[in-house]
Amino acid sequence: MPTSTEFSLAEAIAVLTRTPATLNALLRGLPNTWVRGNEGKDTWTAFDIVGHLIVGERTDWIPRVRIIMANGEARPFDPFDRFAQFKETEDKSLERLLDDFTRLRGENLAALQTLNLQPEDLARRGKHPALGVVTLSELLATWAVHDLTHLHQLSRVMAHQYRDAVGPWLAYLGVLRCDGHSAP
Amino acid sequence: MPTSTEFSLAEAIAVLTRTPATLNALLRGLPNTWVRGNEGKDTWTAFDIVGHLIVGERTDWIPRVRIIMANGEARPFDPFDRFAQFKETEDKSLERLLDDFTRLRGENLAALQTLNLQPEDLARRGKHPALGVVTLSELLATWAVHDLTHLHQLSRVMAHQYRDAVGPWLAYLGVLRCDGHSAP
Repeated sequence: MPTSTEFSLAEAIAVLTRTPATLNALLRGLPNTWVRGNEGKDTWTAFDIVGHLIVGERTDWIPRVRIIMANGEARPFDPFDRFAQFKETEDKSLERLLDDFTRLRGENLAALQTLNLQPEDLARRGKHPALGVVTLSELLATWAVHDLTHLHQLSRVMAHQYRDAVGPWLAYLGVLRCDGHSAP
Repeated sequence: MPTSTEFSLAEAIAVLTRTPATLNALLRGLPNTWVRGNEGKDTWTAFDIVGHLIVGERTDWIPRVRIIMANGEARPFDPFDRFAQFKETEDKSLERLLDDFTRLRGENLAALQTLNLQPEDLARRGKHPALGVVTLSELLATWAVHDLTHLHQLSRVMAHQYRDAVGPWLAYLGVLRCDGHSAP
């Protein structure tokens, strides 16, 4: 493994800014085969994944940034509910979820900008309820990589729907050999 | 694993149509950290992956559809060069590659429509130089899943750049545990 790069706020924001448009381009208007298919019992659909990203925007990333800035390690983050989307997305369309995610992400990136974080802020420490001490830069890096882990999962869940349809090409398509390490 | 769905030409086209805009939304204008970073020796960058998709549009998918329609199993497909992009993309920008891919994919989907494939055509057989007998529907399903396998790879290559930056969250981010089954 080569050395991976150091965190840069501008680089993280570059990824975070693009995710809503990426999901819109990939998912909006797709047939239900791709949107409502999962990988079997207790796995997520593309619809569920977008719902999960919405919950993160509401309860995870910026709220945790604020806790670090206000309280440091003194106040642990609230635990994140990784299953809240199943209740919250009932009776909504994928298009509605995509719109909600786009709006919330925009609001959260605006909130981040308002905080006007300085380089020294990035080393501030907070307390994760399970992982222990983390830094603000680790939280922000994770926000961006969390988008990527769910893009990874989305591509795998969608590909799974054509697992049989590709016939002998199964042997060449790595996404169909992914064991679901990024599944919930 | 649940039963995966049967091939539908309209569903495959729905994915194939969306890939150029998805890659544009994800990649265009990103800092070099995300575009020019790979996962170590002999692995691909995001730039290389887009180059590979272009080679596929030029030499793989529609040319193979035409061979099946004209010659069936009598004429095996030409082998696909999985490394051609390293030469072909020299001196090009990512933006140029994204434009080229968008144009070629549009032309190829137009060519597919012109062929006016009927349900009985989907069972036509061709000969893959390594995999042996394949059907037209398997080829078209693979074209769509090939897009998804490289989206899977893209998200992994990008996430890798922040492997260290996420700190203890490494444990929760599945994309960082992906072993590269979808790497070249």
